[in-house]
Amino acid sequence: MADPRGDVGVALATMRARCLIRGIDLADYQRLSEKVAGWDDWWNQWTAMGEHYLGLADRYQAAGWQTSAGAARVRAGVAFHFGKSLAVQDDARYRDLTVRSVDAVAAGLRLLDPAFERIEVPFEGHKVVGNLRRPRGTARPPLVLLLPGTESVKEEFPKWEEDFLSRGMATLSMDGPGQGEVGFELGIRLDYERSVSAVLDVLDGRDDLDLTRIAAAGVSLGGYYAIRSAAFEPRITAVLANCGPWTLGEEWERMPPLYRAKYAWNLGGGSEKTARERAKSLTLDGVAERVDVPALVIFGGKDVLLDGDRHGRRTAQALPKGELWMFEQGNHAVTDFAAEHLGPGADWLLTHM
Amino acid sequence: MADPRGDVGVALATMRARCLIRGIDLADYQRLSEKVAGWDDWWNQWTAMGEHYLGLADRYQAAGWQTSAGAARVRAGVAFHFGKSLAVQDDARYRDLTVRSVDAVAAGLRLLDPAFERIEVPFEGHKVVGNLRRPRGTARPPLVLLLPGTESVKEEFPKWEEDFLSRGMATLSMDGPGQGEVGFELGIRLDYERSVSAVLDVLDGRDDLDLTRIAAAGVSLGGYYAIRSAAFEPRITAVLANCGPWTLGEEWERMPPLYRAKYAWNLGGGSEKTARERAKSLTLDGVAERVDVPALVIFGGKDVLLDGDRHGRRTAQALPKGELWMFEQGNHAVTDFAAEHLGPGADWLLTHM
Repeated sequence: MADPRGDVGVALATMRARCLIRGIDLADYQRLSEKVAGWDDWWNQWTAMGEHYLGLADRYQAAGWQTSAGAARVRAGVAFHFGKSLAVQDDARYRDLTVRSVDAVAAGLRLLDPAFERIEVPFEGHKVVGNLRRPRGTARPPLVLLLPGTESVKEEFPKWEEDFLSRGMATLSMDGPGQGEVGFELGIRLDYERSVSAVLDVLDGRDDLDLTRIAAAGVSLGGYYAIRSAAFEPRITAVLANCGPWTLGEEWERMPPLYRAKYAWNLGGGSEKTARERAKSLTLDGVAERVDVPALVIFGGKDVLLDGDRHGRRTAQALPKGELWMFEQGNHAVTDFAAEHLGPGADWLLTHM
Repeated sequence: MADPRGDVGVALATMRARCLIRGIDLADYQRLSEKVAGWDDWWNQWTAMGEHYLGLADRYQAAGWQTSAGAARVRAGVAFHFGKSLAVQDDARYRDLTVRSVDAVAAGLRLLDPAFERIEVPFEGHKVVGNLRRPRGTARPPLVLLLPGTESVKEEFPKWEEDFLSRGMATLSMDGPGQGEVGFELGIRLDYERSVSAVLDVLDGRDDLDLTRIAAAGVSLGGYYAIRSAAFEPRITAVLANCGPWTLGEEWERMPPLYRAKYAWNLGGGSEKTARERAKSLTLDGVAERVDVPALVIFGGKDVLLDGDRHGRRTAQALPKGELWMFEQGNHAVTDFAAEHLGPGADWLLTHM
């Protein structure tokens, strides 16, 4: 197996629970695990899974089975996403798989949800993009912005969106600077909240959303973005940060090489040393104490990327209205106790936003 | 480990994909797998999982988080069900866990779904019971009866119900003779369709269901029940049988001892020989050819309980309007290709009923 660094094993172990809560079936994941013949083959196998479901979607659509077709397209898009989310070796292929993921998820959501809208927002000569969904049966729902992390994207969130939709909240999952299709043009930046403000400007005046109640919820580096957004964007009325770092660069050495390589690539390429310096500039120093809205910090005590005390507890304590849900046995993003924070976290936001 | 026959290993291997598609999280299943200290401990561990979620449900409910509380109660009830579904050693405990499962699922569905109704139907001096759910936004939805198999119950189906509800169909998951709470009084019987007819009699005249379109969908022995119901109950307009046997007793020897013991217990106790003779009387001989409505047979070529040719292909060929979805690599109930038949099967029924 062409995998001298053992990346396949690291990826399979760290991604399984995450893939499952985002909509991949365990049986598909198991079959993929048995087939992957090396790190280069990782995206082949995910691509094959995605194409399998696209083929099924075509058949379902030909039969007039819109819901099955939509679900299969979303599943395909999620598979394409996981095929490239940790891969850095081939920019052209990364771009191709990103576009296929974006297209499949959008096509699927369009079939599943007549209210689905893709929102493109001009931003600094380029654009940021959001997937907007509104719950059925609610005329002016409150809005939750779902913010992905370093190697994540809006395409990872269709399942998470359902936790909010089923509670009468609208969702806007966004790709900001450094993320997915937007990352082709705009790199990671400190002040992600400026892209959040641009999105809110575009939504301003809509009468099918209650824009007096807007929450930001983020995972991993998206947790950092959510807290920054709450600190600097006054329209945010509550925030949820799941395993966000206090400072991204602080724990560089404890990350597996696979993740360090990916983070370095996302941080603009160059050497790991440069990337690490850039990562250190992404910090909540001087930021967390400015958040004057209710804030929920979710963290896993067994997070292999970020230390629970130095990031989770520290963040919760620095937030003036911070609350901490610490899962002592939980991993990064607490994907192994998902039922205890995905739905309940949505309820917490609805109560506090 | 007090498990001379290796039942824990058999149960863990054969139940995993099934538990997952019915709503148990893999992370919970993994933790349980690591803790189970022997077959006697199997139900302890599932009971502990259920109680954990009931405790969370109480907290969520105290906070006013109805959706989270409902989901946690359903999850608890599903866990209680899996704790006793294969266990035969202690009737009092089986009964206790059955009642706890019934109560938790019903309490959860009541919180999640204002339209939920528990329907008790007088039947031969006792009763059969159904969980009725209607989709939002549809005044007169068609109805699908969900029929469990030998060691299954209506409490296993809340997730499956969602596949129908999201497509605008109502569901009635039922416990008939030999199943769950009804099994306390009524044993397994050939002519399960009589209990189906009793349920339909009670629904007759309702104007919130389209009773000109009623499908029966069953899993494992429930597949046999669904086909019998379509053969003898003229109100059934389409049928789906997932891994139903042609004759239950035919493959007795190939079943693992754990399953043989459970099936013998469900078939009324006594010796395995007696049970096997009773099981042979459950047959589609002379029945399948009477089904004059569209019928979908779903089967797994790697089913460890029932041979794909002798049960799946034979049944599909004998049904005048039979269609076969054979998953050559699929296990019993094809829980390892769930995305390819749960939703699409619901769409197939909607098209044909």
